[in-house]
Amino acid sequence: MNLETISFKNNTLKILDQTVLPSRQEYLHLATLEQVIEAIKTLKVRGAPAIGVVAAYGLVVEALNLNKNHSLTAEKLKESAKLLKTARPTAVNLAWAADRMIGRIEFLSDAEEILSVLKNEALAIHEEDKQTCDKIGEFGSQLISDGFNILTHCNTGFLATGGIGTALGVVYKAFEQGKKVHVFVDETRPVGQGARLTYWELKQNNVPATLITDNMAGCLMKDKKVDFVITGADRIALNGDTANKIGTYPLAVLAQYHNIPFYVAAPLSTFDPSVKEGDQIPIEQRSKNEVLKFWGIDSLDFYEVFNPAFDVTPGELITGIITEYGILQKPYTDQITRIFKHFNNKGDVL
Amino acid sequence: MNLETISFKNNTLKILDQTVLPSRQEYLHLATLEQVIEAIKTLKVRGAPAIGVVAAYGLVVEALNLNKNHSLTAEKLKESAKLLKTARPTAVNLAWAADRMIGRIEFLSDAEEILSVLKNEALAIHEEDKQTCDKIGEFGSQLISDGFNILTHCNTGFLATGGIGTALGVVYKAFEQGKKVHVFVDETRPVGQGARLTYWELKQNNVPATLITDNMAGCLMKDKKVDFVITGADRIALNGDTANKIGTYPLAVLAQYHNIPFYVAAPLSTFDPSVKEGDQIPIEQRSKNEVLKFWGIDSLDFYEVFNPAFDVTPGELITGIITEYGILQKPYTDQITRIFKHFNNKGDVL
Repeated sequence: MNLETISFKNNTLKILDQTVLPSRQEYLHLATLEQVIEAIKTLKVRGAPAIGVVAAYGLVVEALNLNKNHSLTAEKLKESAKLLKTARPTAVNLAWAADRMIGRIEFLSDAEEILSVLKNEALAIHEEDKQTCDKIGEFGSQLISDGFNILTHCNTGFLATGGIGTALGVVYKAFEQGKKVHVFVDETRPVGQGARLTYWELKQNNVPATLITDNMAGCLMKDKKVDFVITGADRIALNGDTANKIGTYPLAVLAQYHNIPFYVAAPLSTFDPSVKEGDQIPIEQRSKNEVLKFWGIDSLDFYEVFNPAFDVTPGELITGIITEYGILQKPYTDQITRIFKHFNNKGDVL
Repeated sequence: MNLETISFKNNTLKILDQTVLPSRQEYLHLATLEQVIEAIKTLKVRGAPAIGVVAAYGLVVEALNLNKNHSLTAEKLKESAKLLKTARPTAVNLAWAADRMIGRIEFLSDAEEILSVLKNEALAIHEEDKQTCDKIGEFGSQLISDGFNILTHCNTGFLATGGIGTALGVVYKAFEQGKKVHVFVDETRPVGQGARLTYWELKQNNVPATLITDNMAGCLMKDKKVDFVITGADRIALNGDTANKIGTYPLAVLAQYHNIPFYVAAPLSTFDPSVKEGDQIPIEQRSKNEVLKFWGIDSLDFYEVFNPAFDVTPGELITGIITEYGILQKPYTDQITRIFKHFNNKGDVL
């Protein structure tokens, strides 16, 4: 199982362009910070952990360019990081990766040293993300029984992370363990990350899957065709409230109504302990055209469209949150506080 | 408020082609039964009551053609009606209208008399449908308060009936009464009857509306932005279980979870007292291409797609069913039985 979606070799950052999948597999060379920001904004790369990895490499690209003009300083990069962090507001990994990169060079003045530290840090972020995915996959796969029909929303696999994925990582690990699993893939309106990306990468890895539109999940649950629901997360508040791709919240309500376990899989970098409750998470509103273009509608003035990219699922609707450190259970506030206290003391994660 | 979507003048049946809206307003002349069946199959006309009206006119068109060849008999038309009834399996109005038409001519042998009876019956079905819509609108509008945000799914207005509509008829009546209402319109995947038809016809009638994708209804409800949910129906069982456009069932679950009233609006012709419970209603499965074409995916073999056109909402999740005879309340079996007993005795409806 492998799929290279982000690569950094010979100082060159390349990403698999997720906007043209599954029709074409095209790699884009991102040569400037502006191109990195543009790629994040236009969803050429998306998925909270993948955005973090690309953001880290993006700062290396920026440092390399500044260095060519002999203007590389920690101060300048701090400005660049600020700009980069504005690309998308909801996923916390973007800010997390940018801050982590800047934190490493804050007190450095030698350009070569800055470059070398940044490169190592970006590679470390990428490598850690791979390992994190593997660990999430291993913990989560213990919850998957042979023969499970698993419902998922959006894309949380190779294309969304630097590794095998979070929610899909759990599926891949279970599949590798020889469990017969089948995945119902929500197409995930408006941008179709399920239809275009998740279905495609599951098939690339020979995992049986069936595509549905988002509004079909309910009747599948009613007909007892879903054993397990698992999604990723874009930001998790201290109490477990989880911002994730629009459409996640209704799945959680439906899962509870039908007594189906609803799990979230996410690395610790997706948690934001500075946010106590979900309603404090900023929700990105995207353009109306994203919804309309599918219907061949270009009379944009005629149409009022509400197009939030995410919704927030209350922690109490989430059966458990699968992290690289194990599976968190309700109530989440205590456990999340404890984990972050632990890492703050070690100075390791935050 | 008016919008002519089905017309029969000078022996010519014309329909507004719903597959090219809202980009173009094109009327199609349906000159043969085959064209009528094709138009129903390909959703050029859809909406349970509208299908009933077009089916009735379709049999007149067939009778006119048979008469030209001097081969018009009740027996032949019975065969045509059988064929017509296969065009779509879920909406009961199709069979209801066809059977009603055939019932009127069963014992007639004179071709001119058959023609004249059929024409009158089709016009009566159309006119009754208009009046039915008005009555449903009047009963239902009593439930709508000034300032309500109303969520609806699929299309149930001028384009779905022979009149102002069922669920949208309720909205139109409330609006006419001067109540400030605003409608959240589910786009209604996979075919987009909400995005293309409902939004368009609400705007034609100056009713404020906002388009959302189906997976956004949940977060609107959570944020207390929805006061009332109303949908139409394609077939209602004796116990109130209601088959309607895929995505209706999850809305009903979400509405109950958020304590929001969930109403169904439908004429008596949509009830099927021969079906005791919803799981006996046949659910049409449509082609995978309907889901895939929006994502520019044409590698159809690669994709497994589950594409049911309808789901079934249990009666217990429905706050009330608005009919032309008043608003039915739970438990439905008794009330529906009583209504049909009443009409069977009079020989009026069934």
